[in-house]
Amino acid sequence: MGNVIEEVAVSLADELAKVDEHLQEIIQSDTLLVREVGEYVLSTRGKRLRPILSILAAKVFKYCGDDHTKVATALELVHCATLLHDDVIDKAPLRRGLPTVNARWGDDVAILIADYLFSHAFSLALSTSMSPKVLSLICQVTARMCEGEMFQIEKRDAMLTRDDYLRIVRGKTAYLFSACTALGAILARAPEQQVMLLSAYGLNFGIAFQITDDTLDLIASDDEIGKPHWADIRNGKQTLPVIHTFESASDTDRQKLVECWNNGRNPEEIVPLIEKYGGIEHALAEARRYATTAKEQLADFPTSPPVNMLRNLADFVVQRRH
Amino acid sequence: MGNVIEEVAVSLADELAKVDEHLQEIIQSDTLLVREVGEYVLSTRGKRLRPILSILAAKVFKYCGDDHTKVATALELVHCATLLHDDVIDKAPLRRGLPTVNARWGDDVAILIADYLFSHAFSLALSTSMSPKVLSLICQVTARMCEGEMFQIEKRDAMLTRDDYLRIVRGKTAYLFSACTALGAILARAPEQQVMLLSAYGLNFGIAFQITDDTLDLIASDDEIGKPHWADIRNGKQTLPVIHTFESASDTDRQKLVECWNNGRNPEEIVPLIEKYGGIEHALAEARRYATTAKEQLADFPTSPPVNMLRNLADFVVQRRH
Repeated sequence: MGNVIEEVAVSLADELAKVDEHLQEIIQSDTLLVREVGEYVLSTRGKRLRPILSILAAKVFKYCGDDHTKVATALELVHCATLLHDDVIDKAPLRRGLPTVNARWGDDVAILIADYLFSHAFSLALSTSMSPKVLSLICQVTARMCEGEMFQIEKRDAMLTRDDYLRIVRGKTAYLFSACTALGAILARAPEQQVMLLSAYGLNFGIAFQITDDTLDLIASDDEIGKPHWADIRNGKQTLPVIHTFESASDTDRQKLVECWNNGRNPEEIVPLIEKYGGIEHALAEARRYATTAKEQLADFPTSPPVNMLRNLADFVVQRRH
Repeated sequence: MGNVIEEVAVSLADELAKVDEHLQEIIQSDTLLVREVGEYVLSTRGKRLRPILSILAAKVFKYCGDDHTKVATALELVHCATLLHDDVIDKAPLRRGLPTVNARWGDDVAILIADYLFSHAFSLALSTSMSPKVLSLICQVTARMCEGEMFQIEKRDAMLTRDDYLRIVRGKTAYLFSACTALGAILARAPEQQVMLLSAYGLNFGIAFQITDDTLDLIASDDEIGKPHWADIRNGKQTLPVIHTFESASDTDRQKLVECWNNGRNPEEIVPLIEKYGGIEHALAEARRYATTAKEQLADFPTSPPVNMLRNLADFVVQRRH
């Protein structure tokens, strides 16, 4: 299927260039270290999925104006800031094959540059024509992201249920995607009902994305994901393949899984158990199910390039290898 | 002179109770750990200087409305959030005589609860009648605080000039105080010129506050400041007494100071040098000078209880021992 994201990015080249401009402006601080680290953060960004989704959502409703690139930038900034804090929290050495900011400059710099980007995300959202609605949603979603992570920490020493897992996934990932597509629609003054559909698209897209991401940690090579694989197991993060195994294993195997989990979490022992119960296939099937639900939200929209791209992205996100 | 802050707090009891209510609402999350840590953060707060200043500034202009307590709460949240991140950055074990959140729950929890409080600070500011102005100033000041801290890190291995030090103090502390008093005036729809005066009061108050704070680290007992003293020297933070010593010492003593600073920073060697050159007296005199400048901004305001309180607070802040 080629790289769908790259194709979409090419078709949004003008808007994404505008996003890059906004990002560049933001890191033009009087403080040298802010510029230096800011430049590094911007130049090592990922697939730009969040700005792409918010711009596409605006284009679904034929938005013509400049605010969508500002909102897309604000959402990208929130994403960058949370990744920076996540990497400090996880003591992650690598992201996308490159040293993290915490590894290269220290936790202090990573925490502060993230706070700087957060502040500017709110500033930029404030400069849009629908700023109260936009900001209110961005504030809500950032608070929910923190709650999702705090819930994950709260449950660190327990075996997660499927509901717990989904609550974490919504909090950490899916609400932000949902805000991306909802805000695109809001800026374009789409009717409430259609904002809800776009919001639901983003939520389901986000869940599909995160389940896939979690599963790639188990099956992809280090080069593909740009960081050491099996990191989630080592860090004690229970993802859907593990939870499925826990749910469907025989009593003996469940016992064994819990013991492995509570004592050293050796991936060499845990991964075979996951494979025995088809945990990876199950998780990928669930991801596909959420991607399908995402696409279903668009069923009543007349066909158009942006609607097609949203459909293709939902397919792509569960098929990717990195 | 008694405890001026307590007297002021008594006279603002209704407003401060409202601030406490807003704070309580904010930590009512579905996530248990957010409530638990949030409760701890709120119950271990300090002197509430920032909400007090913003409420007083509104009262100078006879503000009658409810938004000033919301803005006061937002400013207190920004302050709490930055302290939480600072304590992670400094690996601080204690604040106000109690374990820090990072010491008690870990860096991850401290980082996340701070982000949660940040988001809610913006949300609350958004719910006020003058939200664009209020939010824009709060965003600006939070970005500047990060820049101040980043600048401090950038200069970690250099000897600071007095200008460097003041740039850090403005960034880390004084701009937020300036926003407190400016926002009180803005909410009360004070004329631009008077907003500027209140803003300048807050800026000078904040510089006086921070210089005093930095100096207390050298002279107060652990019990008085609620954390181990000489922490700044040990953490390599150059404050005004050190900078004054560096500026005014003989060549031999300056050499000695630089050597001590670059090799282990033993306070037993550094503090006598500071004392020899009157570094503490100099810093306290500078703090008093800034407090006087703060009060001068109020010279043309008719006498009223809130104006008197602002004057008394400026005196108090440079005389306190904790």
